[in-house]
Amino acid sequence: MLSIIAVMVENRAGVLSRVSNLFARRGFNISSLAVGETQNPEISRITLSLDVSAEELAQMVKQLYKLPDVLIVRNLTHERYCAREFVFFKVSCVASQRGEVINLINIFRGHIVDVSADSLTFEVSGAEEKIAALQQLLNEYGILELVRTGQIAIERGSSSFSAPLKEDSHTEEVSE
Amino acid sequence: MLSIIAVMVENRAGVLSRVSNLFARRGFNISSLAVGETQNPEISRITLSLDVSAEELAQMVKQLYKLPDVLIVRNLTHERYCAREFVFFKVSCVASQRGEVINLINIFRGHIVDVSADSLTFEVSGAEEKIAALQQLLNEYGILELVRTGQIAIERGSSSFSAPLKEDSHTEEVSE
Repeated sequence: MLSIIAVMVENRAGVLSRVSNLFARRGFNISSLAVGETQNPEISRITLSLDVSAEELAQMVKQLYKLPDVLIVRNLTHERYCAREFVFFKVSCVASQRGEVINLINIFRGHIVDVSADSLTFEVSGAEEKIAALQQLLNEYGILELVRTGQIAIERGSSSFSAPLKEDSHTEEVSE
Repeated sequence: MLSIIAVMVENRAGVLSRVSNLFARRGFNISSLAVGETQNPEISRITLSLDVSAEELAQMVKQLYKLPDVLIVRNLTHERYCAREFVFFKVSCVASQRGEVINLINIFRGHIVDVSADSLTFEVSGAEEKIAALQQLLNEYGILELVRTGQIAIERGSSSFSAPLKEDSHTEEVSE
Protein backbone atom coordinates (compact mmCIF):
# COMPACT_ATOMS: atom_id res chain seq x y z
CA MET A 1 0.00 0.00 0.00
CA LEU A 2 1.43 3.37 -0.99
CA SER A 3 1.42 5.60 2.09
CA ILE A 4 2.35 9.23 2.56
CA ILE A 5 3.66 10.13 5.98
CA ALA A 6 4.88 13.44 7.34
CA VAL A 7 7.53 13.50 10.05
CA MET A 8 8.20 16.64 12.05
CA VAL A 9 11.75 16.67 13.33
CA GLU A 10 14.07 19.04 15.11
CA ASN A 11 16.20 20.88 12.55
CA ARG A 12 19.59 19.51 13.64
CA ALA A 13 22.62 18.23 11.74
CA GLY A 14 22.33 14.49 11.14
CA VAL A 15 18.58 14.15 11.63
CA LEU A 16 17.93 13.19 8.00
CA SER A 17 20.71 10.67 8.23
CA ARG A 18 19.16 9.10 11.35
CA VAL A 19 15.70 8.94 9.77
CA SER A 20 16.93 7.52 6.46
CA ASN A 21 19.12 4.98 8.27
CA LEU A 22 16.01 3.65 9.97
CA PHE A 23 14.39 2.91 6.62
CA ALA A 24 17.60 1.64 5.02
CA ARG A 25 18.22 -0.84 7.84
CA ARG A 26 14.83 -2.42 7.22
CA GLY A 27 15.27 -2.33 3.45
CA PHE A 28 12.11 -0.26 3.01
CA ASN A 29 11.55 1.12 -0.42
CA ILE A 30 11.08 4.88 -0.10
CA SER A 31 9.66 6.04 -3.44
CA SER A 32 10.03 9.70 -2.62
CA LEU A 33 11.42 11.92 0.12
CA ALA A 34 11.31 15.68 0.55
CA VAL A 35 12.63 17.70 3.44
CA GLY A 36 12.40 21.37 4.28
CA GLU A 37 12.01 23.85 7.11
CA THR A 38 8.51 24.63 8.37
CA GLN A 39 7.13 28.00 9.50
CA ASN A 40 9.25 27.39 12.61
CA PRO A 41 12.90 27.30 11.46
CA GLU A 42 13.76 25.00 14.36
CA ILE A 43 11.47 22.32 12.97
CA SER A 44 11.79 20.53 9.63
CA ARG A 45 9.21 18.39 7.93
CA ILE A 46 10.11 15.23 6.05
CA THR A 47 7.50 13.92 3.61
CA LEU A 48 7.92 10.25 2.73
CA SER A 49 6.06 8.14 0.20
CA LEU A 50 6.59 4.47 0.71
CA ASP A 51 5.06 1.18 -0.25
CA VAL A 52 4.57 -0.88 2.91
CA SER A 53 1.91 -2.93 4.65
CA ALA A 54 -0.17 -1.37 7.44
CA GLU A 55 1.72 -3.49 10.01
CA GLU A 56 5.12 -2.41 8.70
CA LEU A 57 4.01 1.21 8.76
CA ALA A 58 2.81 0.96 12.37
CA GLN A 59 6.16 -0.61 13.29
CA MET A 60 8.01 2.15 11.45
CA VAL A 61 6.09 4.87 13.27
CA LYS A 62 7.05 3.29 16.60
CA GLN A 63 10.70 3.21 15.55
CA LEU A 64 10.57 6.82 14.37
CA TYR A 65 9.24 7.99 17.72
CA LYS A 66 12.25 6.38 19.38
CA LEU A 67 14.58 8.82 17.59
CA PRO A 68 15.30 11.81 19.83
CA ASP A 69 14.79 14.35 17.00
CA VAL A 70 11.35 13.10 15.96
CA LEU A 71 8.49 15.24 17.26
CA ILE A 72 5.37 14.11 15.40
CA VAL A 73 4.60 11.46 12.79
CA ARG A 74 1.38 11.63 10.79
CA ASN A 75 -0.02 9.24 8.26
CA LEU A 76 -1.70 11.45 5.69
CA THR A 77 -2.93 8.53 3.60
CA HIS A 78 -6.23 8.36 5.45
CA GLU A 79 -6.78 12.12 5.61
CA ARG A 80 -8.15 14.45 2.98
CA TYR A 81 -4.89 15.74 1.65
CA CYS A 82 -3.38 17.38 -1.37
CA ALA A 83 -0.08 15.99 -2.72
CA ARG A 84 2.13 17.49 -5.39
CA GLU A 85 5.57 17.14 -6.75
CA PHE A 86 7.54 19.78 -8.58
CA VAL A 87 9.64 19.01 -11.64
CA PHE A 88 12.02 20.58 -14.13
CA PHE A 89 11.92 19.06 -17.62
CA LYS A 90 14.58 19.85 -20.22
CA VAL A 91 13.28 18.65 -23.58
CA SER A 92 15.08 18.34 -26.89
CA CYS A 93 13.19 20.71 -29.19
CA VAL A 94 14.22 22.57 -32.33
CA ALA A 95 12.46 25.75 -33.49
CA SER A 96 9.95 23.93 -35.71
CA GLN A 97 8.79 21.78 -32.76
CA ARG A 98 8.49 24.61 -30.25
CA GLY A 99 4.81 25.30 -30.94
CA GLU A 100 3.85 21.70 -30.21
CA VAL A 101 5.89 21.51 -27.03
CA ILE A 102 4.65 24.89 -25.77
CA ASN A 103 1.07 23.71 -26.28
CA LEU A 104 1.78 20.67 -24.12
CA ILE A 105 3.40 22.85 -21.45
CA ASN A 106 0.36 25.13 -21.39
CA ILE A 107 -2.07 22.23 -21.12
CA PHE A 108 -0.18 20.99 -18.06
CA ARG A 109 0.15 24.55 -16.68
CA GLY A 110 3.92 24.54 -16.78
CA HIS A 111 6.14 27.62 -17.03
CA ILE A 112 9.11 27.92 -19.37
CA VAL A 113 12.29 28.92 -17.55
CA ASP A 114 14.85 28.65 -20.37
CA VAL A 115 15.04 28.21 -24.12
CA SER A 116 17.95 27.45 -26.44
CA ALA A 117 18.23 26.67 -30.16
CA ASP A 118 17.56 22.99 -29.54
CA SER A 119 15.99 22.72 -26.09
CA LEU A 120 13.21 23.98 -23.86
CA THR A 121 13.37 23.89 -20.06
CA PHE A 122 10.22 24.32 -18.00
CA GLU A 123 8.86 23.82 -14.50
CA VAL A 124 5.59 22.09 -13.67
CA SER A 125 3.85 20.90 -10.51
CA GLY A 126 1.20 18.26 -10.05
CA ALA A 127 0.17 14.90 -8.70
CA GLU A 128 2.47 12.03 -9.62
CA GLU A 129 0.05 10.69 -12.24
CA LYS A 130 -0.02 14.05 -14.01
CA ILE A 131 3.77 14.23 -14.11
CA ALA A 132 3.92 10.64 -15.39
CA ALA A 133 1.43 11.43 -18.17
CA LEU A 134 3.41 14.48 -19.24
CA GLN A 135 6.67 12.54 -19.15
CA GLN A 136 5.20 9.95 -21.49
CA LEU A 137 4.13 12.64 -23.96
CA LEU A 138 7.53 14.33 -23.85
CA ASN A 139 9.41 11.10 -24.49
CA GLU A 140 8.51 11.58 -28.14
CA TYR A 141 10.73 14.68 -28.29
CA GLY A 142 13.47 13.35 -26.03
CA ILE A 143 13.86 14.27 -22.36
CA LEU A 144 17.40 15.59 -21.85
CA GLU A 145 17.00 16.11 -18.14
CA LEU A 146 14.35 15.52 -15.49
CA VAL A 147 14.79 16.89 -11.96
CA ARG A 148 12.09 16.20 -9.37
CA THR A 149 11.64 17.34 -5.80
CA GLY A 150 9.87 14.34 -4.37
CA GLN A 151 6.28 14.60 -3.21
CA ILE A 152 5.00 16.95 -0.52
CA ALA A 153 1.52 16.74 0.98
CA ILE A 154 -0.73 18.92 3.10
CA GLU A 155 -4.03 18.20 4.82
CA ARG A 156 -7.09 19.95 3.48
CA GLY A 157 -9.10 22.17 5.82
CA SER A 158 -7.82 24.52 8.46
CA SER A 159 -6.34 21.96 10.85
CA SER A 160 -2.60 22.21 11.20
CA PHE A 161 -0.05 19.55 11.90
CA SER A 162 -0.46 19.18 15.63
CA ALA A 163 -2.08 15.92 16.65
CA PRO A 164 0.33 12.99 16.82
CA LEU A 165 -0.43 9.80 14.90
CA LYS A 166 -0.14 7.52 17.90
CA GLU A 167 -2.06 8.06 21.11
CA ASP A 168 0.90 6.69 23.02
CA SER A 169 3.23 9.30 21.55
CA HIS A 170 5.67 10.96 23.89
CA THR A 171 4.91 14.30 22.28
CA GLU A 172 2.19 16.62 23.45
CA GLU A 173 1.31 19.73 21.49
CA VAL A 174 0.10 22.62 23.56
CA SER A 175 -2.32 24.84 21.69
CA GLU A 176 -2.07 28.51 22.46
CA MET B 1 29.60 30.09 0.54
CA LEU B 2 26.19 28.69 -0.35
CA SER B 3 26.66 26.00 -2.99
CA ILE B 4 24.18 23.92 -4.93
CA ILE B 5 25.37 20.51 -5.99
CA ALA B 6 23.60 17.76 -7.88
CA VAL B 7 24.51 14.15 -7.22
CA MET B 8 23.45 11.41 -9.60
CA VAL B 9 23.17 8.11 -7.79
CA GLU B 10 21.98 4.61 -8.51
CA ASN B 11 18.39 4.22 -7.35
CA ARG B 12 19.01 1.60 -4.66
CA ALA B 13 17.71 1.13 -1.12
CA GLY B 14 19.97 2.88 1.36
CA VAL B 15 21.69 5.27 -1.03
CA LEU B 16 20.18 8.38 0.55
CA SER B 17 21.21 7.09 3.93
CA ARG B 18 24.82 6.62 2.74
CA VAL B 19 24.96 10.09 1.20
CA SER B 20 23.40 11.85 4.19
CA ASN B 21 25.69 9.93 6.58
CA LEU B 22 28.68 11.38 4.79
CA PHE B 23 27.48 14.92 5.49
CA ALA B 24 26.33 14.14 9.02
CA ARG B 25 29.69 12.63 9.97
CA ARG B 26 31.44 15.87 9.04
CA GLY B 27 28.76 17.99 10.70
CA PHE B 28 28.02 19.81 7.45
CA ASN B 29 24.99 21.98 7.51
CA ILE B 30 22.73 20.96 4.61
CA SER B 31 20.20 23.77 4.21
CA SER B 32 18.08 21.86 1.74
CA LEU B 33 17.91 18.43 0.15
CA ALA B 34 15.63 17.06 -2.55
CA VAL B 35 15.71 13.63 -4.11
CA GLY B 36 13.80 12.11 -7.00
CA GLU B 37 14.07 9.77 -9.94
CA THR B 38 15.43 11.11 -13.23
CA GLN B 39 14.27 10.29 -16.77
CA ASN B 40 16.08 6.99 -16.17
CA PRO B 41 14.25 5.25 -13.29
CA GLU B 42 17.48 3.46 -12.33
CA ILE B 43 19.12 6.78 -11.54
CA SER B 44 18.07 9.30 -8.87
CA ARG B 45 19.23 12.86 -8.53
CA ILE B 46 19.92 14.43 -5.15
CA THR B 47 20.03 18.23 -5.06
CA LEU B 48 21.85 19.65 -2.03
CA SER B 49 22.23 23.25 -0.90
CA LEU B 50 24.96 23.66 1.67
CA ASP B 51 27.08 26.36 3.18
CA VAL B 52 30.71 25.27 2.98
CA SER B 53 34.08 26.62 1.90
CA ALA B 54 35.48 25.76 -1.55
CA GLU B 55 38.04 23.44 0.08
CA GLU B 56 35.40 21.61 2.11
CA LEU B 57 33.27 21.21 -1.00
CA ALA B 58 36.17 19.75 -3.01
CA GLN B 59 36.84 17.33 -0.15
CA MET B 60 33.16 16.40 -0.03
CA VAL B 61 33.04 15.70 -3.76
CA LYS B 62 36.01 13.34 -3.41
CA GLN B 63 34.25 11.53 -0.55
CA LEU B 64 31.03 11.28 -2.53
CA TYR B 65 32.82 9.64 -5.46
CA LYS B 66 34.08 6.97 -3.07
CA LEU B 67 30.52 5.79 -2.45
CA PRO B 68 29.69 2.91 -4.79
CA ASP B 69 26.26 4.32 -5.69
CA VAL B 70 27.49 7.76 -6.75
CA LEU B 71 27.76 8.23 -10.51
CA ILE B 72 28.28 11.96 -11.08
CA VAL B 73 28.62 15.02 -8.85
CA ARG B 74 28.19 18.50 -10.31
CA ASN B 75 28.65 21.85 -8.68
CA LEU B 76 25.93 24.01 -10.23
CA THR B 77 26.98 27.12 -8.32
CA HIS B 78 29.32 28.26 -11.08
CA GLU B 79 26.99 27.36 -13.95
CA ARG B 80 24.11 29.32 -15.37
CA TYR B 81 21.34 27.52 -13.58
CA CYS B 82 17.77 27.94 -12.52
CA ALA B 83 16.82 26.98 -8.94
CA ARG B 84 13.35 26.73 -7.46
CA GLU B 85 11.62 25.35 -4.47
CA PHE B 86 7.99 24.36 -4.22
CA VAL B 87 5.89 25.17 -1.19
CA PHE B 88 2.42 24.67 0.31
CA PHE B 89 1.24 27.48 2.56
CA LYS B 90 -1.84 27.11 4.78
CA VAL B 91 -2.81 30.57 5.99
CA SER B 92 -5.30 31.60 8.63
CA CYS B 93 -7.86 33.66 6.72
CA VAL B 94 -11.52 34.43 7.36
CA ALA B 95 -13.93 35.42 4.58
CA SER B 96 -13.34 39.17 4.99
CA GLN B 97 -9.57 38.72 4.50
CA ARG B 98 -9.81 36.42 1.50
CA GLY B 99 -9.58 39.19 -1.10
CA GLU B 100 -6.32 40.49 0.36
CA VAL B 101 -4.74 37.05 0.61
CA ILE B 102 -5.87 36.04 -2.89
CA ASN B 103 -4.26 39.22 -4.26
CA LEU B 104 -0.97 38.24 -2.64
CA ILE B 105 -1.24 34.69 -4.02
CA ASN B 106 -1.84 36.06 -7.52
CA ILE B 107 1.11 38.46 -7.32
CA PHE B 108 3.36 35.53 -6.43
CA ARG B 109 1.69 33.30 -9.08
CA GLY B 110 0.48 30.77 -6.57
CA HIS B 111 -2.50 28.45 -7.03
CA ILE B 112 -5.15 27.84 -4.40
CA VAL B 113 -5.65 24.13 -3.67
CA ASP B 114 -8.07 24.30 -0.75
CA VAL B 115 -10.29 26.75 1.08
CA SER B 116 -12.17 26.50 4.37
CA ALA B 117 -14.17 28.98 6.49
CA ASP B 118 -11.02 30.17 8.22
CA SER B 119 -8.08 29.09 6.05
CA LEU B 120 -6.64 29.16 2.55
CA THR B 121 -4.14 26.58 1.28
CA PHE B 122 -2.11 27.27 -1.85
CA GLU B 123 0.95 26.08 -3.74
CA VAL B 124 3.68 28.34 -5.07
CA SER B 125 7.11 27.85 -6.62
CA GLY B 126 10.06 30.19 -6.80
CA ALA B 127 13.58 31.04 -5.78
CA GLU B 128 14.25 30.95 -2.06
CA GLU B 129 14.21 34.76 -1.75
CA LYS B 130 10.77 34.92 -3.32
CA ILE B 131 9.40 32.30 -0.93
CA ALA B 132 11.00 34.14 2.01
CA ALA B 133 9.41 37.46 0.93
CA LEU B 134 5.99 35.82 0.62
CA GLN B 135 6.38 34.12 3.99
CA GLN B 136 7.09 37.47 5.61
CA LEU B 137 3.95 39.00 4.08
CA LEU B 138 1.81 36.06 5.15
CA ASN B 139 3.03 36.17 8.75
CA GLU B 140 0.59 39.03 9.23
CA TYR B 141 -2.33 36.64 8.71
CA GLY B 142 -0.80 33.69 10.51
CA ILE B 143 0.83 30.73 8.76
CA LEU B 144 -0.83 27.55 10.01
CA GLU B 145 1.36 25.23 8.01
CA LEU B 146 4.31 25.51 5.64
CA VAL B 147 5.56 22.47 3.71
CA ARG B 148 8.56 22.86 1.40
CA THR B 149 10.24 20.48 -1.00
CA GLY B 150 13.79 21.71 -0.74
CA GLN B 151 15.48 23.34 -3.69
CA ILE B 152 16.01 21.74 -7.09
CA ALA B 153 18.23 23.22 -9.79
CA ILE B 154 18.81 22.71 -13.49
CA GLU B 155 21.46 24.10 -15.84
CA ARG B 156 20.32 26.54 -18.47
CA GLY B 157 20.95 25.73 -22.14
CA SER B 158 20.66 22.37 -23.83
CA SER B 159 23.51 20.58 -22.09
CA SER B 160 22.41 17.67 -19.97
CA PHE B 161 23.92 16.27 -16.83
CA SER B 162 26.76 14.22 -18.25
CA ALA B 163 30.18 15.74 -17.59
CA PRO B 164 31.59 14.89 -14.16
CA LEU B 165 32.72 17.68 -11.84
CA LYS B 166 36.21 16.27 -11.27
CA GLU B 167 38.56 15.29 -14.07
CA ASP B 168 39.79 12.43 -11.93
CA SER B 169 36.31 10.99 -11.62
CA HIS B 170 35.96 7.25 -11.96
CA THR B 171 32.79 7.69 -13.98
CA GLU B 172 32.69 7.90 -17.74
CA GLU B 173 29.48 8.70 -19.54
CA VAL B 174 29.07 6.92 -22.82
CA SER B 175 26.92 8.81 -25.27
CA GLU B 176 24.85 6.71 -27.59
